[in-house]
Amino acid sequence: MKVKDIGEQGLLERLQRFCPAEIIGDDAAVISSSPEQSLVVTTDMLVDGVHFSDATTSPEDVGWRSTAANLSDLAAMGARPLGITVALGLPGEVPVEWVERLYKGMDECLKLHQTPIVGGDVCRSPVITVSITAFGEVEPNQTIYRNTAQVGDAIAITGFHGASRAGLELLIHPEIGQNLSDRDRSFLIQAHQRPKPRLDVLPILQEILAGDVGKAKRAFNSEFRIPNSEFPISGMDSSDGLADAIVQICQMSGVGARIDRDRIPIPPALSDLVTAEQAVEWALYGGEDFELVLCLPQQPAEARIEHLGEGAAIIGEITAELEIILCDRTNKNPDRILSRDRGFQHF
Amino acid sequence: MKVKDIGEQGLLERLQRFCPAEIIGDDAAVISSSPEQSLVVTTDMLVDGVHFSDATTSPEDVGWRSTAANLSDLAAMGARPLGITVALGLPGEVPVEWVERLYKGMDECLKLHQTPIVGGDVCRSPVITVSITAFGEVEPNQTIYRNTAQVGDAIAITGFHGASRAGLELLIHPEIGQNLSDRDRSFLIQAHQRPKPRLDVLPILQEILAGDVGKAKRAFNSEFRIPNSEFPISGMDSSDGLADAIVQICQMSGVGARIDRDRIPIPPALSDLVTAEQAVEWALYGGEDFELVLCLPQQPAEARIEHLGEGAAIIGEITAELEIILCDRTNKNPDRILSRDRGFQHF
Repeated sequence: MKVKDIGEQGLLERLQRFCPAEIIGDDAAVISSSPEQSLVVTTDMLVDGVHFSDATTSPEDVGWRSTAANLSDLAAMGARPLGITVALGLPGEVPVEWVERLYKGMDECLKLHQTPIVGGDVCRSPVITVSITAFGEVEPNQTIYRNTAQVGDAIAITGFHGASRAGLELLIHPEIGQNLSDRDRSFLIQAHQRPKPRLDVLPILQEILAGDVGKAKRAFNSEFRIPNSEFPISGMDSSDGLADAIVQICQMSGVGARIDRDRIPIPPALSDLVTAEQAVEWALYGGEDFELVLCLPQQPAEARIEHLGEGAAIIGEITAELEIILCDRTNKNPDRILSRDRGFQHF
Repeated sequence: MKVKDIGEQGLLERLQRFCPAEIIGDDAAVISSSPEQSLVVTTDMLVDGVHFSDATTSPEDVGWRSTAANLSDLAAMGARPLGITVALGLPGEVPVEWVERLYKGMDECLKLHQTPIVGGDVCRSPVITVSITAFGEVEPNQTIYRNTAQVGDAIAITGFHGASRAGLELLIHPEIGQNLSDRDRSFLIQAHQRPKPRLDVLPILQEILAGDVGKAKRAFNSEFRIPNSEFPISGMDSSDGLADAIVQICQMSGVGARIDRDRIPIPPALSDLVTAEQAVEWALYGGEDFELVLCLPQQPAEARIEHLGEGAAIIGEITAELEIILCDRTNKNPDRILSRDRGFQHF
């Protein structure tokens, strides 16, 4: 049996036997190093020809995107970044300038979040390989897990989806963008090349917690003598696609969801590029938008959704039925059950 | 200009411009996350055909050695391990069993140090690539840096050197080991395949600190009003060779060293394998022995050297002259100046 026969998920399931059960299966690992702060760690490997190519990605963009992906995993846990390490595998023929431009891209992304590169390794390899590990910290009772979504929670997403996939398409087939304004074309391509980790959302989530939802939850827990350890916001990032994020949250929380097709925020520019049907597919399965998918009580979600960013929207609700149903309030499309099947598999 | 034109050191010097100056150049990065504990992070990448091959290394051994190398970097900083992450690049054709055996080897090494695998990534790659990041913690005032060796310090090493290089030679050319006993052959091969990170040394170093040296240093600092922040033990591990470690410590501390050739602990089995001259070369430049090279005051070094492990020895002294001189008290060999030139360069 070969790796390609069982795919990424099959392999991960086998390897998880070697890991402690309680720290597996989220955007990043949480290690309780002290009562005040947990250490949060995440790692990613990118390979030339698999995850990037000179055709669509400059070395600066490879640096930016790989860094942004890791910082996004920290954001998805509610964690502030402390630093990253970078391990590089390089063929001897790679121009030094290429490597410096890679680091320049990383540095540009990191600077926005006051995060240092704290160490690394370089070694010879037949293929350019970039392995980044990011670590951050979060208060134990403010950690955002995937498996704590509650029936009745609003499903809030922090921005547009489908933009990154559209940007990639414009890079591969520039001719399809002839009807787009320069501004729209640039917006979509930037979404692909320079995605923004949503660390800016964390202070707003803390406000929400400090406000009514936190108080209500604490009062409720206190009245029913429930230990006040459960954070009322669950979620993950949408790096592998919006559908993948919703399905994973639901599966791990033992709940289902109803998603309103017409509330999914699609970048306006997409209507000049593809059909509405295609745009929804890209939003659900395109991936790499690096927004956060958050489940939290309805009232604070509605009160603060506009603060979460351009395009932020409540797109549905967590349900007790285990299915994840994409429904159309206008009845133009039949209900559809979402699955991870079309998500990105790495082998 | 290509990566191969400037080599590993040249490339690292260019990339260090992107990193904060104060956290570069040790076995691992130290991040002051709290006044009580610093976070220590180190990362390594291993590539099939460059760092390991099926000819000399089983997948279990690749797993063990890559894990041991990272834990050794933590030991070299004085840090207790908290966990590791593993990023794997794999061709689809790799047998699943190979990957599981890799993890088994990691797990065997980690279990000895109660350290979990806390997360990872798997992705497609044309070449098997293993990238490990290890993190640990250490009290800020007990961190072992490379750049604090003091003139007059004893240079203590925690065990035999040259064994790993000899073991590699036995794996590549089994015929040269015909004169060895099974026990000696096994010892040398194990040294290569299953090196032991010297985390066991840390409690002994803490004893030394709690004892006379710590008190004397504190009294001295107190008398002369020197802030008591400097830890009286400096050092690093000998993963890139004993000579490399001594030279790096001296260069970073602005000191030199005199090393007694006949005090370098060579495994007795080597005398049945190669000339004394060759054995010293392997001890100095063979690499991958993963012992610690420690500089500390003479008196506690002499008092505790036997506790540091089999083969542990004081091999010389830190000097004010900047050269690192290998001398022979028996006058059989002329003095020789050690340099890193013959150390392992990865391109």
